[in-house]
Amino acid sequence: MISPIRIAVLGASGYTGADLVRLALTHPNIEIAALSANAKAGQTMASVWPHFAYVPLPMLTRADEIDWGSIDVVFGCLPHAASAALLSEVIGPRIIDLSADFRLREAATYAEWYDGAHAAPALLDHAVYGLTEFARAALPTARIVACPGCYPTAVLLGLLPLVEARAIGAERITINALSGVSGAGRSLKEANLFTEVAEAVHPYAIGRHRHMPEIEQELSQRAGQAVTVSFTPHLVPMNRGELVTMVVETNCDVAELHGILEHRYAAEPFVHVLAPGVAPATRMVRGSNHAVVNVFADRVPGRAIVIAAIDNLVKGSSGQAIQNMNAMLGLPETTGLQAAALFP
Amino acid sequence: MISPIRIAVLGASGYTGADLVRLALTHPNIEIAALSANAKAGQTMASVWPHFAYVPLPMLTRADEIDWGSIDVVFGCLPHAASAALLSEVIGPRIIDLSADFRLREAATYAEWYDGAHAAPALLDHAVYGLTEFARAALPTARIVACPGCYPTAVLLGLLPLVEARAIGAERITINALSGVSGAGRSLKEANLFTEVAEAVHPYAIGRHRHMPEIEQELSQRAGQAVTVSFTPHLVPMNRGELVTMVVETNCDVAELHGILEHRYAAEPFVHVLAPGVAPATRMVRGSNHAVVNVFADRVPGRAIVIAAIDNLVKGSSGQAIQNMNAMLGLPETTGLQAAALFP
Amino acid sequence: MISPIRIAVLGASGYTGADLVRLALTHPNIEIAALSANAKAGQTMASVWPHFAYVPLPMLTRADEIDWGSIDVVFGCLPHAASAALLSEVIGPRIIDLSADFRLREAATYAEWYDGAHAAPALLDHAVYGLTEFARAALPTARIVACPGCYPTAVLLGLLPLVEARAIGAERITINALSGVSGAGRSLKEANLFTEVAEAVHPYAIGRHRHMPEIEQELSQRAGQAVTVSFTPHLVPMNRGELVTMVVETNCDVAELHGILEHRYAAEPFVHVLAPGVAPATRMVRGSNHAVVNVFADRVPGRAIVIAAIDNLVKGSSGQAIQNMNAMLGLPETTGLQAAALFP
Amino acid sequence: MISPIRIAVLGASGYTGADLVRLALTHPNIEIAALSANAKAGQTMASVWPHFAYVPLPMLTRADEIDWGSIDVVFGCLPHAASAALLSEVIGPRIIDLSADFRLREAATYAEWYDGAHAAPALLDHAVYGLTEFARAALPTARIVACPGCYPTAVLLGLLPLVEARAIGAERITINALSGVSGAGRSLKEANLFTEVAEAVHPYAIGRHRHMPEIEQELSQRAGQAVTVSFTPHLVPMNRGELVTMVVETNCDVAELHGILEHRYAAEPFVHVLAPGVAPATRMVRGSNHAVVNVFADRVPGRAIVIAAIDNLVKGSSGQAIQNMNAMLGLPETTGLQAAALFP
Repeated sequence: MISPIRIAVLGASGYTGADLVRLALTHPNIEIAALSANAKAGQTMASVWPHFAYVPLPMLTRADEIDWGSIDVVFGCLPHAASAALLSEVIGPRIIDLSADFRLREAATYAEWYDGAHAAPALLDHAVYGLTEFARAALPTARIVACPGCYPTAVLLGLLPLVEARAIGAERITINALSGVSGAGRSLKEANLFTEVAEAVHPYAIGRHRHMPEIEQELSQRAGQAVTVSFTPHLVPMNRGELVTMVVETNCDVAELHGILEHRYAAEPFVHVLAPGVAPATRMVRGSNHAVVNVFADRVPGRAIVIAAIDNLVKGSSGQAIQNMNAMLGLPETTGLQAAALFP
Repeated sequence: MISPIRIAVLGASGYTGADLVRLALTHPNIEIAALSANAKAGQTMASVWPHFAYVPLPMLTRADEIDWGSIDVVFGCLPHAASAALLSEVIGPRIIDLSADFRLREAATYAEWYDGAHAAPALLDHAVYGLTEFARAALPTARIVACPGCYPTAVLLGLLPLVEARAIGAERITINALSGVSGAGRSLKEANLFTEVAEAVHPYAIGRHRHMPEIEQELSQRAGQAVTVSFTPHLVPMNRGELVTMVVETNCDVAELHGILEHRYAAEPFVHVLAPGVAPATRMVRGSNHAVVNVFADRVPGRAIVIAAIDNLVKGSSGQAIQNMNAMLGLPETTGLQAAALFP
Repeated sequence: MISPIRIAVLGASGYTGADLVRLALTHPNIEIAALSANAKAGQTMASVWPHFAYVPLPMLTRADEIDWGSIDVVFGCLPHAASAALLSEVIGPRIIDLSADFRLREAATYAEWYDGAHAAPALLDHAVYGLTEFARAALPTARIVACPGCYPTAVLLGLLPLVEARAIGAERITINALSGVSGAGRSLKEANLFTEVAEAVHPYAIGRHRHMPEIEQELSQRAGQAVTVSFTPHLVPMNRGELVTMVVETNCDVAELHGILEHRYAAEPFVHVLAPGVAPATRMVRGSNHAVVNVFADRVPGRAIVIAAIDNLVKGSSGQAIQNMNAMLGLPETTGLQAAALFP
Repeated sequence: MISPIRIAVLGASGYTGADLVRLALTHPNIEIAALSANAKAGQTMASVWPHFAYVPLPMLTRADEIDWGSIDVVFGCLPHAASAALLSEVIGPRIIDLSADFRLREAATYAEWYDGAHAAPALLDHAVYGLTEFARAALPTARIVACPGCYPTAVLLGLLPLVEARAIGAERITINALSGVSGAGRSLKEANLFTEVAEAVHPYAIGRHRHMPEIEQELSQRAGQAVTVSFTPHLVPMNRGELVTMVVETNCDVAELHGILEHRYAAEPFVHVLAPGVAPATRMVRGSNHAVVNVFADRVPGRAIVIAAIDNLVKGSSGQAIQNMNAMLGLPETTGLQAAALFP
């Protein structure tokens, strides 16, 4: 065994922070060295999280109390803006950021979509966009890895191979997305109360969700031309899970498209192209780092329907972060991430 | 008060049948005269339905035991094929059918999508497609009213005014639909068990759902040209509710589209165009006959997003059936349907 | 028709206030004259509530802006303490309070359980404890009606007839209670977020819930001796509904107990004793003012299990409040409350 | 590493069978050698289970096709009666049975509660009741391990230490139990449809659940006297999880009771006595083999409230089965079971 990787989790009182800790607990090479949550500093994780009520973990501290010199890898699980501000002061450890701050390459685009100037624009050039399956070459030397947003992860896993193969059009990509409520975080908003969400469904951020520029940036780069997507996310009464249904223009038949996906992901441990006709479902991947993808014929000539599902907190966030750490440090990518999906 | 309208509900052991009975119980002009369910004939509604455990109702009988001469209106809540076979023998009462059997005008289209020849093709010419807001003129003299499917109801309420106004293109209409589980009926399928559906979401009948030809038939007729839609339904872990998100091509700006919808529905008691920017949600209409509609700008030039929500069992089924009966018999359309939505 | 009853709802931004408005909308004799919510004064109900997004209603005001002289009945839907403080200044209208402030007869008991002195102890003598089925005689002349808590409503409907008949022991009554999340109100607490509650269950306020003294007060009065109960409430992932399972000591067999309940409730429109062996369930009463009750033999000799279910927001709160108003003003008790339960 | 343990899972098309496979997949010493499901023989696990859609696993076979000589451990995940009938023919492998067939020591009691004579009464003497924490000494030499029922697991973990210490009375133990829907299995019953269960709660098998004699058998043995319990289970709208609330008679104060539990479980890896005042919750243990327990003061003198929570499919079934296998074969008990709980 290699010597333990000492990690710090910044923002351990949020859902992505907690899920990162959950996964780290059974990762054979990780030692959880520090957990920060400024507003809850001094509290135990046991008092903040039901599922850690009986788990020995370091006390929550303020981020500025962490001795960076003792840390190998920092996981940033903070809200955007706060993340860049803090991480710009972290010298020494490798950084894996789960916020939106290092995903967009252009500071101007960031400023437009995230309501303000970027806190650390100089760092943008040092960041690798960490959709692991498409970022491997760059990870071992990356100083900062920007983990993709949950929606972009699902969308890109479904579309990137098809875009790269020029098998689908760069225009008129229509994405409909469904997310569990954990995607909204643990902050106190009336809209996230059980009674507002249960036994109901609704769209939100219609036509203006912050994950749109990120999706377009990555698709455009691979397509070699500008891609613009229609994107409508919906909130579904479930804790975890994300499913994207994407109608695309294509001259290929569905078997060709399926073949492209299957070929691209044949060796991937976490991305699974389902047998023809099998519909992706969030229950296939709940609680796991797996993603499922498939493509279907549409009755409308010249169209196909690509569908992908992930657990938004795992492959869409904390699991992919650990997968990136594994790749960054030369561990097998599946280390600590082998749990099967939880069903029912 | 007019003398009571004596109704028979065929298929009272299914969810649409039960919801029709629920609404009929507080309709001031309805007398529930007969309830049929061949497989459960001889049982009480109290033994078949939890919410009728304490409600006095006629015993379930076989349909062939009903004295049609004593019935004013028959509500058909049977599965397709069984419905047409039975209703073709009903002489006397007015017929309001909630199955798919009289929705499609062409028997050939029916045969293609519903796995077999139509059981009573001669009756198709006597049927009125009962999307009430667009069918009023024909209802008073209709012998058979075919209540629209739940998805077509939501889709058409959102799109018909825009199609009629030539404000949106007839091509490239992309519909994403979300439905509660009651849409799948009360039949015993593993796929509908709580444990298979809860805390999860998945698409089904991708690109081949039976409501597609019905949607296209009605859109094409109003558009004056063939319309083909991409349609992907998803199962959401909630009992009731349906929401459709429709990306359309348009040369109009969103204010114009909103104005068209608002103008069309200004006098409608059950269809509500929300204020600009307010997202339709199933929780707005749960348990009620109301529908909510709105339209949003897309970032992609030349596109807009139309969204509509209904309760699939009420406006999408039994409520609209009663609304049709009211219109057919000259009662105010809102009679017995005035309950506000149930939230939370 | 009698002239409209002009009502004011204080606290119309909470769930009980909203459900009172929902029911008032279809009450044939009610005119909604004023709606208050101090923190949201100036906002529309449409902006505060999804299901009123399209319903014309008075603007929210501050309570002190209401002209009491124009109001016939005030419904208090405020938190405890705030309610008594405000209602003590209401002169003129009849008062129906849904808070805890006028339920306990002793100001000292109130102070002990509700963290502070009662704001208007002089009014306690003017209050009638409004469990309608047991309070009818006093309602027509009551100045203030204190609507029972949701748990006490379910518990008392199950136990009072048995206690009055001396059919069960006054000791060792063990109550286990299950509630939907709306019972926790619409306030912003992490504990009520969807993600904290869904796909989970837990007890709370174990052995110290504020409804205990209220239950004991009413049981003791009818029993003619002190009654102390064990009471453990649990939060269940559903919006509405409440079910209490009560193990009691008895020398009677279950048929006798069933007979006592049946006899007592034979003429009641809203309380239903189920057939022997049929288990009460919240789905039997969802969204309605109905209550279901039954009693079961226990294998332990000398014990029986009494079970009752209600919708916590209707019979457990706003529905019972309107039932009380009906009784107070001489209307048929069922006026405006006849909707059947919503299932599924 | 020891050589792989080759296991067969009988009944791999049910929820306990599937959860056993899920856990076995990441157990470092297990090789899944055979999976049976007579009604689905010849199908793949991928076609039967959504979460195994992309997992390579042996094809489902008939049980009588398994070569017992090649199997080290058989896990019986069959319904009662079928299990004993089949397992009586298994010669060679160690047997871990998850059905009810080997839990009751007396064939007569079994016959009374399980509707028929025991299929293999001669084997009862060879069976160890496998509540691991209380069965360790007997496991290494056991031929058959009978895994406890899910309710008994939770109840006994909460009560056995208190009964052994004579700290609580053997009479008047009142147990209220809440279970997720997976406890009902994957069989097609109307009662388990999503729409019948969601947004609702109800009791079932009131006073006559089959887990009662099992609970009483184990409590009586440890108490040294006959124990009879009142037991009422309820179905809660969640997939997994079980919580029992038990009111007991005691002369001890709650600190003493807490101390007894804490002392008993201090060294246990899976049973956690929470800090005083912290309420057990199913979300603390979801998807994991952990159990949480606590005890609370009741306001009624001489009573206390003991509460325990588990995941019914893991510690209440398949997880405990693997824990038993580990103990039986001399592996560390936590092998393959270290995953933390999944929250949210």
